[in-house]
Amino acid sequence: MGRILCAGLGPGDPDLMAVRADRAIRTARHIAYFRKAGRQGQARRIVEGMLAPGAVEHAMEYPVTTEIPFDSPEYNHLLSAFYDGWAGRLAALAGARQEVVVLCEGDPFFYGSFMHLYVRLKDHVPVEVIPGIPGMVGCWNAMGTPVTWGDDVLTVLMGTLPEQELVAHMRGADALAIMKTGRNLPRVRRALQAVGRLDDAWLIERGTMPGQRIAPLAQIDADDCPYFAIVLVHGRGRRPVARGVA
Amino acid sequence: MGRILCAGLGPGDPDLMAVRADRAIRTARHIAYFRKAGRQGQARRIVEGMLAPGAVEHAMEYPVTTEIPFDSPEYNHLLSAFYDGWAGRLAALAGARQEVVVLCEGDPFFYGSFMHLYVRLKDHVPVEVIPGIPGMVGCWNAMGTPVTWGDDVLTVLMGTLPEQELVAHMRGADALAIMKTGRNLPRVRRALQAVGRLDDAWLIERGTMPGQRIAPLAQIDADDCPYFAIVLVHGRGRRPVARGVA
Repeated sequence: MGRILCAGLGPGDPDLMAVRADRAIRTARHIAYFRKAGRQGQARRIVEGMLAPGAVEHAMEYPVTTEIPFDSPEYNHLLSAFYDGWAGRLAALAGARQEVVVLCEGDPFFYGSFMHLYVRLKDHVPVEVIPGIPGMVGCWNAMGTPVTWGDDVLTVLMGTLPEQELVAHMRGADALAIMKTGRNLPRVRRALQAVGRLDDAWLIERGTMPGQRIAPLAQIDADDCPYFAIVLVHGRGRRPVARGVA
Repeated sequence: MGRILCAGLGPGDPDLMAVRADRAIRTARHIAYFRKAGRQGQARRIVEGMLAPGAVEHAMEYPVTTEIPFDSPEYNHLLSAFYDGWAGRLAALAGARQEVVVLCEGDPFFYGSFMHLYVRLKDHVPVEVIPGIPGMVGCWNAMGTPVTWGDDVLTVLMGTLPEQELVAHMRGADALAIMKTGRNLPRVRRALQAVGRLDDAWLIERGTMPGQRIAPLAQIDADDCPYFAIVLVHGRGRRPVARGVA
């Protein structure tokens, strides 16, 4: 029996992936990665120049991305069939004593697309996951500013959440990381404005990668925000309180 | 002019540090790390066997850890003097054209002790930080369970927070990572109980390291929880809502 090995790629700079992931990718005979049809894809771009000669590449191309609403039945049906199909193909390779390295940006268990394959595979073939530095961690390091100090509370939010939920979570947090921005940016910005943190917010695009852009969120055009850009608000270092206080 | 290079060590397994950190540590001529007086220290233990022959080690031993309350003036005074002293010594080495690699568990900008040196050094000598996989990421990977799906909200809390604050934050979150547990465990447990998540909570000790322990939090003895153990509650995969809803 072979196995499926998911390698977390980290934030984007190949030098920032884990030693174990680097080794797995350089020695892999089968490499699989998600991408939008017709594109090279971010995951594949990150490992450019690392693959062994003769490595077999399996490009898992999404049947649809933003062409139809992600909350529509068609979208769910198409994606489920897509993940079922690839889970079957990867399981067949493992069954034929092959090891397949699946690439996953950031950390596979932190909002990673690999999860859709993981839940379909884990009870049938050996699956191992190599953690990676999440994209948000690469972004706050790219800024060269500590994101949390002392007793700061960090909340990670998706820009897809309803505005009143964004506001409620932002109110309680010291530090914020907001993903899935893109077309949700106006709502995210209104929510940050509502809690008085808009002027503390930064947009980081392609963090740790070529073409990295870091800018104050208030200065970004709403129509100039890619889906994978991350919004960060840094904590100010909440002072610890005396132990036992409650 | 030399420089100070802080290497994030990741969660503990040396194979999980970034390729860049691994290279920096193996070639360093000066290595500095924090530890409790008289102990080897976790950071130094992680790099055991990696240091170059003749590397000079600088053990930065805390003048005090839990002997006096961390919110007392004496504690703050002793720690400030300690960080001032080491910032001065490291700056002097950089001034003498030396590169010093400072070890930091997890990610240096995410609740890292290195920040106390960073704020004292960054305007005087070149300082570079290599990100690492945060301890909590190693912990949820050690469990082999995705921590966040879809639109899940992740909140990171310190066990040192007052109970009513813990409860308020836990109520709104889908996934939770709670650090600085140790003697704060009873309070953390009461808060999780109050929001009905205690039975979903796990305690991970020495995640990705030898002697790793993973156990349901409800089964842990209050006096059997080390300060650096992490409590995790996994998200259940919040369904995305239709775009534009607000």
